[in-house]
Amino acid sequence: MTPVTSGSGKSLTELFTGAATEGIEDAGVDRIDAMYVGNMMSGFLQKQEHLGSLMATALGREGIEAYKAEGACASGGVAVNLGLKAVASGMEEIVLVGAVEKMSGYTTPEVTTGLMMAEDRTKVAATGVTFVGLNAMIAREYMHKYGVPHEAIAEFPVLCHQNALDNPKAQFRRKISAQDVLSSPLVADPLRLLDCSGIGDGAAALILAPEETARKFSDSPVRIAGSAVATDTLSLYQRPDITVFEASKMAAARAYKMAHVDSHDVDVVEVHDAFSVLGVMALEDLGFAVKGAGTELLKEGQCSRDGRLPVNTFGGLKARGHPVGASGAYQVAELVLQLTNEAGKCQVSDPKVGLAQSVGGIGSTVAVHILRRTD
Amino acid sequence: MTPVTSGSGKSLTELFTGAATEGIEDAGVDRIDAMYVGNMMSGFLQKQEHLGSLMATALGREGIEAYKAEGACASGGVAVNLGLKAVASGMEEIVLVGAVEKMSGYTTPEVTTGLMMAEDRTKVAATGVTFVGLNAMIAREYMHKYGVPHEAIAEFPVLCHQNALDNPKAQFRRKISAQDVLSSPLVADPLRLLDCSGIGDGAAALILAPEETARKFSDSPVRIAGSAVATDTLSLYQRPDITVFEASKMAAARAYKMAHVDSHDVDVVEVHDAFSVLGVMALEDLGFAVKGAGTELLKEGQCSRDGRLPVNTFGGLKARGHPVGASGAYQVAELVLQLTNEAGKCQVSDPKVGLAQSVGGIGSTVAVHILRRTD
Repeated sequence: MTPVTSGSGKSLTELFTGAATEGIEDAGVDRIDAMYVGNMMSGFLQKQEHLGSLMATALGREGIEAYKAEGACASGGVAVNLGLKAVASGMEEIVLVGAVEKMSGYTTPEVTTGLMMAEDRTKVAATGVTFVGLNAMIAREYMHKYGVPHEAIAEFPVLCHQNALDNPKAQFRRKISAQDVLSSPLVADPLRLLDCSGIGDGAAALILAPEETARKFSDSPVRIAGSAVATDTLSLYQRPDITVFEASKMAAARAYKMAHVDSHDVDVVEVHDAFSVLGVMALEDLGFAVKGAGTELLKEGQCSRDGRLPVNTFGGLKARGHPVGASGAYQVAELVLQLTNEAGKCQVSDPKVGLAQSVGGIGSTVAVHILRRTD
Repeated sequence: MTPVTSGSGKSLTELFTGAATEGIEDAGVDRIDAMYVGNMMSGFLQKQEHLGSLMATALGREGIEAYKAEGACASGGVAVNLGLKAVASGMEEIVLVGAVEKMSGYTTPEVTTGLMMAEDRTKVAATGVTFVGLNAMIAREYMHKYGVPHEAIAEFPVLCHQNALDNPKAQFRRKISAQDVLSSPLVADPLRLLDCSGIGDGAAALILAPEETARKFSDSPVRIAGSAVATDTLSLYQRPDITVFEASKMAAARAYKMAHVDSHDVDVVEVHDAFSVLGVMALEDLGFAVKGAGTELLKEGQCSRDGRLPVNTFGGLKARGHPVGASGAYQVAELVLQLTNEAGKCQVSDPKVGLAQSVGGIGSTVAVHILRRTD
């Protein structure tokens, strides 16, 4: 993983190759057979597509199979899903999955327009509503429907900022309080600045291979035990209840089934908290809390790194940072570090099963991965 | 397949759902488990990403796994590769692969900039060269190196226009002569208007499933016997010889090996003739002619529908049309029609093995598929 930063001046290619080179070296593999690049906005922001050949060339590995996978803000998650399919199909052996996004260096209208590519351009973006505005509607409805105060939801970014203090690659490394969240500038009522993830650049990479191959390079490879992608309607207005992400529930159910586990077996979780309320909803939709009770877990301290269900152990989207199309790959890479006891100061105690949830758009695509320690 | 047109006014969604609905009905499947969308330019031209959820929603099939695959002009080809991996991995059973591009309704600078997303934005596009300009350099060098006159290369679009006369879905249905090509307006020396594919909108879709499942819905499913994607350097200036596409040779070699066939076994071919010279080079790089001798096949009439090696039987990119990110899926769909004897007036005699070559950028990504009749 590259550190998530804003304004580093690094190009898309420099970001990607940074993570990919580190990943190849860390895995110790001598070749790559195929590479899949997760990314959302390069066509719009950088006016650059064809990231497969671009990144293969930049790595000096042209010749290999390489192409891009896109699922809006879940692009990193869907790229991991694609990499798994390549290996599981027997069509490729050693696969690099990398995901990258460069969001800094553009004007706010450019980035805002770019993010709205995840929603319906003609019917929704045309009304003038922003991506934050749509998530604000969810937050308002959630607070109203379940009687949950903003103070309770604000504990989610507080947790993320706490965890990020120990992650040298995190974008925002400072402690905040719920009161800080509530007194930060209003972005889209009721969401305030510290409810929202920031604008960042970053890339993360993983090496995937069949277990027997992986064991040649590592004594403790991590198994992708479950992987599923589910969709919901593209637009919020098409849904009967905007306080639940059905795609999260479906992707989780499929991934749990594939991995032969359920939510009680999960020891560490990375969720897509692009906005504070989404982190809380994720805990519910993934089966860790009943609907409307997500903040109870936070209140009880269960989601802290020393709690029963550590969440966003490296800072999550809020504090580690959210380079949108890359975040899903960061999550899985962070779980790998946890499951191999290489998480440093972010390490939680002896986790065996980890879950990552990556959301595209307003819950319109959700990728869930379940990882398991093999030793 | 939708007809390829320019200026129909149809949206990206209308194009895609048109092809997808026709594909689902034609296959007679009762459900779709996953869907992959090939597309290159929606982020730039339509300011719309997230086509997985968008199209799943438009089809009333939200819930399924769905995401986008992009490999520049080879996006349709890489989407088929992804669909095959999904089925071959056992992770999905009935898969819809669709590819779509909408290029009309934009200014020439917009489309020109969009196409250059397939090349390096910072190092090459910044010089002011266009995508046609780069291909013109290839044409000039090819003619010089092998002493092949433009007249000979012009027989490629002549063949395509001839074949398109019988394809009701083709964009350009009129007979042309080599002299017409040579006297058409100059676009980028030496390429003239009739050397170049046009600007078009279109979508094509396929249904993929394991053979035993496919046999429940069809007496004559077509087998994807080989599928490979290879890359070359992103930019032309990085290559020692611009008259050969190494990625074509590599992808073909891998696909032939996977399918247990070689070039002599191929009965019908669809190649990526975005520019006339690319069609000729493809015949060589895929193993049908020695280097520099591609035009001999045309001269001898071997590539006509009644020849030994029918090529671009529905009109190819030049005359059927080239909605860039969709063309690779059109090619495979056309091969399916040929191999099931459903090609109508475009039908060639009793083909058993077909090959499709889809090129991204200036030969920077090439997807090759080999299809085989199963009955």
